[in-house]
Amino acid sequence: MLRSDVDLISVDDHVIEHADVWQDRLPGRLKPRGPRVEERDGIPVWVYDGRAYPPLGLDAVAGDDPSKFTLKTKPFKDMRPGCYDPKARIADMDRDGVAAQLCFPQFPRFAGQTFAEAADKDLALLCVRAWNDFILDEWCATDPARFIPLAIVPLWDAALAAAEIERTAAKGARAITFTENPVPLGMPSFWTDHWDPMFSALEEAEMPMCLHIGSSSKITMPSTDVPMAVIVSLMALNSMSACSDLCFSTVFEKHPRLKVVFSEGGAGWAAYMLEKMDYVWSRHRHYNEVNQTRPPSETFDRHIWVAQITDAVGLATRHQIGVHKMLWESDYPHSDCLWPNSRANAEEQLRDVPDDEARMFAETNARRLFRFEKAS
Amino acid sequence: MLRSDVDLISVDDHVIEHADVWQDRLPGRLKPRGPRVEERDGIPVWVYDGRAYPPLGLDAVAGDDPSKFTLKTKPFKDMRPGCYDPKARIADMDRDGVAAQLCFPQFPRFAGQTFAEAADKDLALLCVRAWNDFILDEWCATDPARFIPLAIVPLWDAALAAAEIERTAAKGARAITFTENPVPLGMPSFWTDHWDPMFSALEEAEMPMCLHIGSSSKITMPSTDVPMAVIVSLMALNSMSACSDLCFSTVFEKHPRLKVVFSEGGAGWAAYMLEKMDYVWSRHRHYNEVNQTRPPSETFDRHIWVAQITDAVGLATRHQIGVHKMLWESDYPHSDCLWPNSRANAEEQLRDVPDDEARMFAETNARRLFRFEKAS
Repeated sequence: MLRSDVDLISVDDHVIEHADVWQDRLPGRLKPRGPRVEERDGIPVWVYDGRAYPPLGLDAVAGDDPSKFTLKTKPFKDMRPGCYDPKARIADMDRDGVAAQLCFPQFPRFAGQTFAEAADKDLALLCVRAWNDFILDEWCATDPARFIPLAIVPLWDAALAAAEIERTAAKGARAITFTENPVPLGMPSFWTDHWDPMFSALEEAEMPMCLHIGSSSKITMPSTDVPMAVIVSLMALNSMSACSDLCFSTVFEKHPRLKVVFSEGGAGWAAYMLEKMDYVWSRHRHYNEVNQTRPPSETFDRHIWVAQITDAVGLATRHQIGVHKMLWESDYPHSDCLWPNSRANAEEQLRDVPDDEARMFAETNARRLFRFEKAS
Repeated sequence: MLRSDVDLISVDDHVIEHADVWQDRLPGRLKPRGPRVEERDGIPVWVYDGRAYPPLGLDAVAGDDPSKFTLKTKPFKDMRPGCYDPKARIADMDRDGVAAQLCFPQFPRFAGQTFAEAADKDLALLCVRAWNDFILDEWCATDPARFIPLAIVPLWDAALAAAEIERTAAKGARAITFTENPVPLGMPSFWTDHWDPMFSALEEAEMPMCLHIGSSSKITMPSTDVPMAVIVSLMALNSMSACSDLCFSTVFEKHPRLKVVFSEGGAGWAAYMLEKMDYVWSRHRHYNEVNQTRPPSETFDRHIWVAQITDAVGLATRHQIGVHKMLWESDYPHSDCLWPNSRANAEEQLRDVPDDEARMFAETNARRLFRFEKAS
């Protein structure tokens, strides 16, 4: 069971950036071209790089009744302040029984794709740095015991990404968010040497990379006829695909200290994938250029973590996955988060799990992985 | 455990068609344009519709040492005769401890896509019928107690498909093979009314449709850099996608007696998908046009079966999936089949499963689903 003295640590949540995140930080002459919020047809939208980005309503629904969910835009005034105000966020975490959160970007998208797609890469780099300064100096600095600092990187240049990892590590960042698959973003795959400088920087800084579902800008959609529910139910297929892509690749041979988290990917598929990958490896490795000496499940055990909101099958198969590989998350304020019942749901799911395993899953795995020590 | 009196019934195997399957059956004037085997550069290839189709080496490797697997073409003379000769197949089944098989087509591809892609649809229809007459009158007729007859349909026309279902049902067919997703084949999705005549014919004939992995002609491939092992390890993602596509759709509301098997899809992902689909349904159905009254797991329980070669996680989660939804398969003579150790492997996997559940999984679920009664 989840004992009351266990700090529940969430490894996947989201900030909704307030309107001045970039305007506060960009140099004066660039402010007009940096991301800013404008009212258009009565709807507040982000404007940047010649495009308008209306926020999705489902991205700020913590506490809303699901029967009222809508895809429509939600203006700041209709959101819980916990979406964009770190003090209000901490109050919402208190109410939810959550000790700490690791927050992903919203406007930049999960891996910072918005800036990677922008035409002016000099400005884009400043925007990446501005978001990192915001999350480190403003959001997490509100109470460093309550937030695990996560940085974004300039996806379009592995050397610049390495430099930004060094810069943010020095300021206290504990992880980066990266893409589950660079190829749909028009970038080289994990089977090339392209990312080596960035992976080396992550090893050096002891920072895991968090690969959020959807961070490849690609979704599994059987057809354009399917409703959103089908797409949402299939999001973990991105993590499964990335899991096999990485476990068979030579990435971890080259980078033995690199660590990867599948954020919001769930865990209930992992035991299946481990067995399947090893079976395929046992029969199909001989005519393939893959690691010939280490089965994929061993690579997973050394390098990969999975994260779940609520996933009874994941917990039931925890010994096949490895309890030390499992992390909890709340996904505040997105549509799958259970706020203000996150801790109650975790308690229910962990009722029959031994105390020591529940503590690993809920707290200590995350503290160790992100070097996020308990304040004494 | 798997008791010795249990008939092990495999619901997914493959014929390698002998060179005269179509030449024996097409009318004389069409023979030159029907599928035939030609030697080209010393390699025997199928020739049809202006194209050459070299068979993949991995498709006829029963009993081969995996360390010798190759993607190269394998001529008939290097194959085990059990690949293409039904009497030799039965001898191989005896050695493998397998009582019966349900065999998919090889040259027509898993759902008959080869004929759906052909320019001359009149000829293609005759080719579909020829394969069905071959499998019914030649292959399965060799010993009706050892083979479950599976038919292909003309994918390009739902009314013709319905007619072929009626024709083959009258000759003893017990199932059809269909595509896990018609959309990548350029056909309407499961969210349209297009397939209703065919689904109604299946209900009327009490024939399940078997959706083999890869039958959408689409694979999950993180990038073109990945070796075949990654692709093979991700094949079940096709079944997962089809599972959600179908469970959220209105197909089964319109066709309450329709039954679906995910052939070679494995089972270890199913418990995860059931929990996930229901969670998504509980939160996201309200703004979606999906069944509002029945959760996806109930639809699965009524309409869907999963099939596995070897999948310890599937068996460990059998009570979440439903033991009555699970089927065994050997995949002879493809690269994942364990011949001649299929039964030994099944015995090992079922060692700690109660006898009555092992019997359902290995024999009686398949007998009931395919109306394949035990010979008295």
